[in-house]
Amino acid sequence: MRNTDPRPITEAVIASFADTPDPRLKQIMTSLVQHLHAFASDVQLTQQEWFQGIDFLTRCGHITDDKRQEFILLSDVLGLSMLTVARNNAKPQGCTEATVFGPFHVEGAPHYALGDDIANGAKGRPCVVRGTVRNLDGEPVPGAVLDVWQSDDEGLYDVQHEHLGHAQARGIITADEQGRFHFRTIVAVPYAIPHDGPVGQMLKATGRHPWRPAHLHFMVKAPGYETLITHVFRKGSDYLDSDAVFGVRQSLVCDWVEQADGSFAMAFDFVLNPALRA
Amino acid sequence: MRNTDPRPITEAVIASFADTPDPRLKQIMTSLVQHLHAFASDVQLTQQEWFQGIDFLTRCGHITDDKRQEFILLSDVLGLSMLTVARNNAKPQGCTEATVFGPFHVEGAPHYALGDDIANGAKGRPCVVRGTVRNLDGEPVPGAVLDVWQSDDEGLYDVQHEHLGHAQARGIITADEQGRFHFRTIVAVPYAIPHDGPVGQMLKATGRHPWRPAHLHFMVKAPGYETLITHVFRKGSDYLDSDAVFGVRQSLVCDWVEQADGSFAMAFDFVLNPALRA
Repeated sequence: MRNTDPRPITEAVIASFADTPDPRLKQIMTSLVQHLHAFASDVQLTQQEWFQGIDFLTRCGHITDDKRQEFILLSDVLGLSMLTVARNNAKPQGCTEATVFGPFHVEGAPHYALGDDIANGAKGRPCVVRGTVRNLDGEPVPGAVLDVWQSDDEGLYDVQHEHLGHAQARGIITADEQGRFHFRTIVAVPYAIPHDGPVGQMLKATGRHPWRPAHLHFMVKAPGYETLITHVFRKGSDYLDSDAVFGVRQSLVCDWVEQADGSFAMAFDFVLNPALRA
Repeated sequence: MRNTDPRPITEAVIASFADTPDPRLKQIMTSLVQHLHAFASDVQLTQQEWFQGIDFLTRCGHITDDKRQEFILLSDVLGLSMLTVARNNAKPQGCTEATVFGPFHVEGAPHYALGDDIANGAKGRPCVVRGTVRNLDGEPVPGAVLDVWQSDDEGLYDVQHEHLGHAQARGIITADEQGRFHFRTIVAVPYAIPHDGPVGQMLKATGRHPWRPAHLHFMVKAPGYETLITHVFRKGSDYLDSDAVFGVRQSLVCDWVEQADGSFAMAFDFVLNPALRA
C-alpha cells in the first residue's frame, strides 16, 4: 500500500487477504483486522502503549509452558472463554448449562467404582456427591461417564502440587443402568487463579481480584449426546457474583448440605442434549 | 456474573474494570474487551478456532527471544504497526513522512565521519548516499544525527548473521553545519521478513508473501525537532505495491541512479517537524 492509494491502511490490510484459499480463514482474518484496527483507532493507541502490549504478550508467551497457560488465563479473565463457550453451547431449555473448561483437566484420570473416594488423599472436609444423568425426556442415560476434577482445601489442583505424582480429587465415574452416580470427595473451596504472572499484574492494575467461587468440574459423556463440560458451584460461596473468569450460571449453583457428622452432601442431576446426527 | 443477571457477558466484563485506578488503562481495557468480544461474535468463533488462536499466540511467544520478536512481526503483517505509526506521526505538510521502525535497529551503532563507508564489509553493489536535513522553513538543521541501517545483498541485516560479531551496513552519521550529509554503503535489495515461524505460516495460509521492497532505514535526530523514523524506498523495486508490513509511502520512494562505473548514487533530503514545546 502506498499513501497515494486512496484506501486507508485498514482496507489495504484487508485487501492483502483477498487470495486466502480457505473462505473461513479469510472471514476470520478480515474481521480480526477490522476490530484490531478499530480498537487502536478508538483509543488512539500511542507507540509506547503499543510497545507495552507487545511486551505483555511476550511475557505471557514466556511464562507459558506445559503446566501453565497464560494465554488461556488471559482469555478467561477477559471473558472471551466464557463468551465462546456460551455461543457454542446454546442448548434447548431444560438442558444443563455449560461453562468454561479451565486449564486443570487431565486426560486419563483414574477410573473409580460408584461410591469410591476420588479424593485419594487430597485434604478437605468429606463430601458425598450423587445425582442422575437424564435426557430431555427425563429418561435416564445409562452408563454415562462423568470425568470429575476439583481443587483441595488449599485451593490447589493436584497438578499444582509439585512432586505429587498421582491424581487427587480427580477421577472418572460411570453411572449405573438408571443413570445414577455417587462418589465421595472433599468440599470445594474458592481459589485464586494463578496471578504471579502478567495476567495477575493486569488484574492488580485494574483493581480486580483473581478469585473463583467454590466449584466442582464435570465433563459428562454418553453415546448419542453432546459432551457436557460444566461446573457445579457451591451455594453461598464467596465470589459467586465476581468470578474472575465469568463462569457462574445461576442454574449451576447447588447447596452443599452439612450433615450431622460434619461431612457434606451434594446432589445434582445432569440433563444432556442429544447429539446432532451426521 | 450470573446468568440471571440481565447484563450479557461483555457488559459484565466491562463492569469488572470499573474500579481501575488509571482512567487511561480503564479506557483501553474497556475498548479492548468490546472489540475482542465483537470479533468473536461477528465470526461466531468456534471452540476449536479459539484454541487454534491460543496455540498460535503460544507459538509466537515461544519463538520470541532476544533476537526474534514474533509479536512485532505479527503486528507488522496485520498493519497494526503502520497504523500506530501513522496515527502518532501526523506532521504538517512538507515534513518527511514516518514509517515503521522494524525489528533490526541496534542501539549504539558505530559512528562514522562524513564520506565513510558504513558497509564495513557487507556485500552488495556500492552506493553513495547524500542529502540535506532541513526544517519546514527550508533552513538547514546543522549537526543533525542520522542513524542508518539496512540489509546486505542477501537480504540479511548484520544481526541476522550468526557469529558476525560486528556492525555491518549500519552506522551513525552527523550532518555538517549546513545540514548536509553523505556516506558510502551498498545498494538495498528486497528481503523476506522472518517467515519460518507462526507468522510465516499465517502468511502462507492466507496466500500472502513475506517480502519487503528495497529500502534504507533512517532515524534522524536534532535538538528542537521531533525524531523522525522512516525508510527511503528504492524506486522500481519489486513489492513496492505489496510490502508485507504496509510501510511504503509514495513520498519516501527515491531513485537509486546507476553510475558509469556500475556503482549507484541516491540523494534524499529530510524535513524535520519542530518538537512540541513543553
